[in-house]
Amino acid sequence: MNLSSTGDPLSPLDLSLRGDKVRSEISDREALVTMSPSDVQWLTGFTGSNGIVYLDHEKFILLTDKRYEEQGPQQIRESCSSAEVMISKTPIEDIPSLALNKIIKVDPNLITWRAALQLEEIIEGGITPSTPLKALRAQKDECEIGRIALAARIVDEALNETIPFLSGNPSEMEIATHLDFKIREKGASGNAYQTIVASGVNSSKPHAQPSAKKIENGDLVIIDVGAVVDGYRSDMTRTFIIGEPSVLQQKYMTVVRESQEEAIKILKPGTACAELDRQCRKKIEEAGWGDLFIHGTGHGVGLDIHEAPAINSKSIENLLTGMVVTIEPGIYFSDNCGVRWEDLYEITESGARQLTLSTKSPQV
Amino acid sequence: MNLSSTGDPLSPLDLSLRGDKVRSEISDREALVTMSPSDVQWLTGFTGSNGIVYLDHEKFILLTDKRYEEQGPQQIRESCSSAEVMISKTPIEDIPSLALNKIIKVDPNLITWRAALQLEEIIEGGITPSTPLKALRAQKDECEIGRIALAARIVDEALNETIPFLSGNPSEMEIATHLDFKIREKGASGNAYQTIVASGVNSSKPHAQPSAKKIENGDLVIIDVGAVVDGYRSDMTRTFIIGEPSVLQQKYMTVVRESQEEAIKILKPGTACAELDRQCRKKIEEAGWGDLFIHGTGHGVGLDIHEAPAINSKSIENLLTGMVVTIEPGIYFSDNCGVRWEDLYEITESGARQLTLSTKSPQV
Repeated sequence: MNLSSTGDPLSPLDLSLRGDKVRSEISDREALVTMSPSDVQWLTGFTGSNGIVYLDHEKFILLTDKRYEEQGPQQIRESCSSAEVMISKTPIEDIPSLALNKIIKVDPNLITWRAALQLEEIIEGGITPSTPLKALRAQKDECEIGRIALAARIVDEALNETIPFLSGNPSEMEIATHLDFKIREKGASGNAYQTIVASGVNSSKPHAQPSAKKIENGDLVIIDVGAVVDGYRSDMTRTFIIGEPSVLQQKYMTVVRESQEEAIKILKPGTACAELDRQCRKKIEEAGWGDLFIHGTGHGVGLDIHEAPAINSKSIENLLTGMVVTIEPGIYFSDNCGVRWEDLYEITESGARQLTLSTKSPQV
Repeated sequence: MNLSSTGDPLSPLDLSLRGDKVRSEISDREALVTMSPSDVQWLTGFTGSNGIVYLDHEKFILLTDKRYEEQGPQQIRESCSSAEVMISKTPIEDIPSLALNKIIKVDPNLITWRAALQLEEIIEGGITPSTPLKALRAQKDECEIGRIALAARIVDEALNETIPFLSGNPSEMEIATHLDFKIREKGASGNAYQTIVASGVNSSKPHAQPSAKKIENGDLVIIDVGAVVDGYRSDMTRTFIIGEPSVLQQKYMTVVRESQEEAIKILKPGTACAELDRQCRKKIEEAGWGDLFIHGTGHGVGLDIHEAPAINSKSIENLLTGMVVTIEPGIYFSDNCGVRWEDLYEITESGARQLTLSTKSPQV
């Protein structure tokens, strides 16, 4: 049994109201279809590789194949979803008999062109590129946040047990392997994404993959790591310095950290995500390194590692309670080094709660 | 440095001819666009999260964003690809200026509806749902097969070092964690997919996830596991019995194994994949369990865990040299138990070479 971040057992997920949440966002002439694994899990608890959900004001059906004849109904029962399972050899082809002449909403970012073409051909009422799920999923309930917080706590502990090895001249891959093993040992089902351990010159690549390069004295080391608990993910980045930092290295780390703190000051319901992005760039721009902060400020995290809201200059969303978001400023000096600090926050009524609690003492 | 399955260093990948391979499959009025990470890696060596390849008879461009300004050119250089990097804030929007009035081929299974709608709107020559890449990628070169074989060897060794723990009453999760750690320790970058360790009644679910259930005397245990080397994957399943098998358990295992052997007899260039599927079902059907073999017989494996050719009753492809395919019959008794044997084969001029070499002695 998984324990929550306070050490109590995690409350079981209760998906009983999710079908109705979607229904309140669609008319009775409309239906929703999704084939995205995380949408399907959010609605039904089902985690198989082949699931389609069909939902309208009367029906709520999980279409899957015979491989999941046992697993489908079991996961729906365990998560209190009100969906029913329909076993089908050709799930898409069964949708018209459910939809009749309803207009079907699908998320155009989460369906292949092939599936869209097929649906367009067979659905009498047509399909329309729109979904209420993205916004609904962005605001998490307590049980979901409990799982994300536990994933974050597991990473905190695993990283804490890995830091002592950083100074022993290991390779990036050895550190990543140790860290990932500790994460599993502590009860996570896996990594939220491929762990980044990027040292020295490799830290200048925001998405470097762990290599055979040895971590050496004087290196900056970026570790970007998350875990999965019951499908829910965490996301955190720390930057370490092996040995005594140079004056410049110290400055990089301080400026990026102060930038993050500027954003955190306005992390509360109602803040525009675009404003959060602007605020997070201020100190870095003042230091003259604005051009080196080459990615967005953050993103929502849940069943997917990147979900709503996006936090960048083009964002149109405002923060809402229950959202779980990263704030992750970074600067990258080409062929030289990089620094990134990333934390995960739950947006609460009064502001924000930090879920990633690993030390920010960079010197090892 | 990774060593091949013979212990020699792996030859570096050489992608220099891949652009021309695609060109020989498209006319000079056509271009190819792909956003699929594995297609992009196959063509350019690039492994970032945001890459689009545009390719016509004159141009071969990798479009990506500033995060990959260093990594993109470096990976292209290292893999001898002839692609050029174009850094772009909005890669899709830059495609019309490359394509002019060419017709663009895209794989409809590997592009979102959103991206297809966007391309349809901005591409003067239009887009068409077709790709030569699926067939080209199905036939691997020696360097690719070397990586898949090494991934398979790593799993063989890791499983060999895990089997002794099966009889000690561990949980499924503990076994999965140990196995996955060994795979990383031996140099793989990760798992080819989430490892399945399904014991007792859980083995009746073909895609069970490792649970806290303890592995007990008398259990059948299905372990389905693969590794990744340089992006290339392996895939294997073994079934174990803890303690003395019952007569029935022994029969299940023998019948499924004989079914696999029937298929392997015709595993050679020219065999129709649909025929391979029929042949693999024979012994299981003769035993009266045809309805319990509830999935396809196999699939190609490469940069993706499921790629061409599909091996099932609807397959239209024939085997060709250089393909790497699984043969994986299984039977699943609802709420009771299951058995699956899966091996990975390279199709050679004279037949097939088995790449997964773990013991098939099921008793632990």
